[in-house]
Amino acid sequence: MNPVEINDELCLCDDTFLMIAGPCSVESEEQILEVARELKKTGVKVLRGGAFKPRTSPDSFQGLGEEGLKLLAKAREETGLAIITEVMDEENLPVVEEYADIIQIGSRNSQNFSLLRKVSRQDKPVMLKRGFGNTVDELIASSKYLSMNGNKKIILTERGIRTFEQSTRFTLDISAVPVLHERSEYPVIIDPSHAAGANRYVEPLAMAGAAAGADGLIIEVHPNPKVALSDAAQQLTVQQYNNLYSKVKQIAAITGKRLI
Amino acid sequence: MNPVEINDELCLCDDTFLMIAGPCSVESEEQILEVARELKKTGVKVLRGGAFKPRTSPDSFQGLGEEGLKLLAKAREETGLAIITEVMDEENLPVVEEYADIIQIGSRNSQNFSLLRKVSRQDKPVMLKRGFGNTVDELIASSKYLSMNGNKKIILTERGIRTFEQSTRFTLDISAVPVLHERSEYPVIIDPSHAAGANRYVEPLAMAGAAAGADGLIIEVHPNPKVALSDAAQQLTVQQYNNLYSKVKQIAAITGKRLI
Amino acid sequence: MNPVEINDELCLCDDTFLMIAGPCSVESEEQILEVARELKKTGVKVLRGGAFKPRTSPDSFQGLGEEGLKLLAKAREETGLAIITEVMDEENLPVVEEYADIIQIGSRNSQNFSLLRKVSRQDKPVMLKRGFGNTVDELIASSKYLSMNGNKKIILTERGIRTFEQSTRFTLDISAVPVLHERSEYPVIIDPSHAAGANRYVEPLAMAGAAAGADGLIIEVHPNPKVALSDAAQQLTVQQYNNLYSKVKQIAAITGKRLI
Amino acid sequence: MNPVEINDELCLCDDTFLMIAGPCSVESEEQILEVARELKKTGVKVLRGGAFKPRTSPDSFQGLGEEGLKLLAKAREETGLAIITEVMDEENLPVVEEYADIIQIGSRNSQNFSLLRKVSRQDKPVMLKRGFGNTVDELIASSKYLSMNGNKKIILTERGIRTFEQSTRFTLDISAVPVLHERSEYPVIIDPSHAAGANRYVEPLAMAGAAAGADGLIIEVHPNPKVALSDAAQQLTVQQYNNLYSKVKQIAAITGKRLI
Repeated sequence: MNPVEINDELCLCDDTFLMIAGPCSVESEEQILEVARELKKTGVKVLRGGAFKPRTSPDSFQGLGEEGLKLLAKAREETGLAIITEVMDEENLPVVEEYADIIQIGSRNSQNFSLLRKVSRQDKPVMLKRGFGNTVDELIASSKYLSMNGNKKIILTERGIRTFEQSTRFTLDISAVPVLHERSEYPVIIDPSHAAGANRYVEPLAMAGAAAGADGLIIEVHPNPKVALSDAAQQLTVQQYNNLYSKVKQIAAITGKRLI
Repeated sequence: MNPVEINDELCLCDDTFLMIAGPCSVESEEQILEVARELKKTGVKVLRGGAFKPRTSPDSFQGLGEEGLKLLAKAREETGLAIITEVMDEENLPVVEEYADIIQIGSRNSQNFSLLRKVSRQDKPVMLKRGFGNTVDELIASSKYLSMNGNKKIILTERGIRTFEQSTRFTLDISAVPVLHERSEYPVIIDPSHAAGANRYVEPLAMAGAAAGADGLIIEVHPNPKVALSDAAQQLTVQQYNNLYSKVKQIAAITGKRLI
Repeated sequence: MNPVEINDELCLCDDTFLMIAGPCSVESEEQILEVARELKKTGVKVLRGGAFKPRTSPDSFQGLGEEGLKLLAKAREETGLAIITEVMDEENLPVVEEYADIIQIGSRNSQNFSLLRKVSRQDKPVMLKRGFGNTVDELIASSKYLSMNGNKKIILTERGIRTFEQSTRFTLDISAVPVLHERSEYPVIIDPSHAAGANRYVEPLAMAGAAAGADGLIIEVHPNPKVALSDAAQQLTVQQYNNLYSKVKQIAAITGKRLI
Repeated sequence: MNPVEINDELCLCDDTFLMIAGPCSVESEEQILEVARELKKTGVKVLRGGAFKPRTSPDSFQGLGEEGLKLLAKAREETGLAIITEVMDEENLPVVEEYADIIQIGSRNSQNFSLLRKVSRQDKPVMLKRGFGNTVDELIASSKYLSMNGNKKIILTERGIRTFEQSTRFTLDISAVPVLHERSEYPVIIDPSHAAGANRYVEPLAMAGAAAGADGLIIEVHPNPKVALSDAAQQLTVQQYNNLYSKVKQIAAITGKRLI
């Protein structure tokens, strides 16, 4: 597996398991600082938080934009957590690149080839989510756009695909973990939150991901999920995250990995 | 239905059925002029041709870019055909907007909300393809990004969705025609070529689309499909297109529409 | 195409288009006779009606059983219509075989290989529906069980498959028509009622089926759909059927077929 | 959870995790006895083996029939292992009921309501597989046919569903574990072999199933997979099974279960 150096202290390698946690969207200074402090205590090293949000409807909350990035930077400054946040277009790429430690490309942009090309020209680590309508092979093909200028700090993420089953928001394709490991050189992370669409399903999906041999998890955690401006149903409380954390740690150990 | 004026002569309305035809990609001056002349004779009024191509792999032919747009303009000048071509990103939007009569947004960009916002700021007609992993309701939600600045010259296109059935490249969701007509005010066009993935299936799917009440078709036609640089398997010859045209004309008449 | 003789007067061949209509379930003598008389006037030659009903829940109406078959026979006696009805198991096969002119195998039994084997031992025509989770090739494989003892009077039926799109009950795979014609020797019929799940979508899907080159349609028609004991939402009134009939007739003519 | 008593020694309850293993098909006395002896040593208590095989094509190996059941009984006599085997139709139900400790209903018969009714009249434990085209709620509805005469010794099995992703034979819907536990009172078992379709993916899927909270696994194991008469690609060797077993044991412990 191609090791991905996130910063001087963090490297995602064969024997590590990366825990990323944080709210769906950055909503306020208070919200992001509170959750960052709490997550820091649990051992999290990378904080997620959306500033630019891809929303199905133009009437939904679209994120705080650059202001959200500044709040993330503030949280990093205070806690030392690395930051991952999503870039939605080339216009915002410079500012996202400025603030983020890992640049995220979302499911709906997984085949936005123009964006992939642009992102390939910078050298920060990139987390590429699988499009929910894309095959594993298409995800790998998209990763080739990202690496075309030599940046191999790529993390692939399975976050659920569209199927006829509607009892979860998407169907987590757990098989993608061994298939991607076989066909690609990049680490594979599971996003159980977007697949589940309901917080009570997040823990079993997260544990399944770890057991299937994933190299990490990205989990939505909110200080108070009920009032979240996006994805309210699927975000965990910090305490729920802590419960999950201790179980995932044990499972990762069985697969030969230690949590980072 | 909201009528869509394409130019002084062409308006897509309740009783019209729009035939769009042309090659997958603009490949050379000779190729695009030849097919434009031939299609002109068959009664086609709108020529399709890709200049910027969204390709799954970075190693595939990516289109001629602005040079392709100039060749399309040349074909328009000579034949009088209107031109539809795809925009892939905001960087190319100004030049696509300059040359195109209808701006196409492809399946993989159907939820590229940043691009949709940018395109909403101009006033040419826009053809929005359904993402192959998107529901009908998500297509309608994407159309709301396009109309957010008042441009209602929007055409929706069904081009097949991802299902377990692999005998065609995608599964044409023919039901999307009546469902979109019920839930949206925009005309609905069928793209049988990308759903079929094989030219022998294009005619039956095109006829099904017309019979289901669609407002038009967009068909890939190439002067010599065997040597096409993209989508070689699914492009029709001009003669195949002509056969299809006469049948579609009769079916459209049954649904109360005349071909334009 | 392998011609299927239904009775002395009816043969489904290359240039014919078979219209089958009738209620989802036989509910009472009054209901089935009324609809049979009305459909007879419209030109229908084959009456459908379920006596044994495969229902997802054991609490739903399960059909009248043999009593339903007798009512169908009564309708045949009075109107001369041929009868198609579903067999659900080998126990009921003798009685279904006794009364039916065409034996139907439903979507949920499309891979009930034991039943297929049993049905293969009799020589009445058989209509085999595609399982909604089955590929076209699996449908063809199932037809080989039916023909293993020499009965080639087989009609294949596309009735919609399971996909992520939920605006219709199933997604009609219209491409199955040309694909089945290419890979199999049997006539292909479309069932728009079960795909649509809503009567307002039945007509466009029926027309699409005819235009795609299908060899017939099977449509749910009820004298008073609102009070139907099963599939109330998707059954047509006789008048709706009549409207559809005249359009389908014109479309079938374009594909070189005459209605029977 | 409703406890399922398999025999005097085995009960599938809240804190147990059931390991079922054995070949896809019973092929010969030598084969079934060899694998039974080997599996016995690993701690397996329930042996799987197909005697009546539902095969997509009538030309494929259809199983040894009653002879296969007798060989399974012989293996039970010698090793003390309980036996699970599939019933395909009511005709074979008496003989399957005579030999089996657990009666299996396969994916293609998950909505064979006539068979479900017949099986409901006996009182041995029943393992009901989810149809690969069925929703979780349809699986639960089918279980209601099984319990209609009071037999609540029902085990539900997730074995993969049909999706557009073709890198595995089916897509294991790992979310079905928590969803079924929430909506149904029956234990839930994972069948990773049929989902994977390739033996190198079986272990990660099995581990994911255990981590997601499943109550057991059913795994295809063959003394010499290369020469297997069915499902050759996906069966594990006994050694591969042993490797998997020790990991699953650790994971089950994390979810509060002990292997039986």
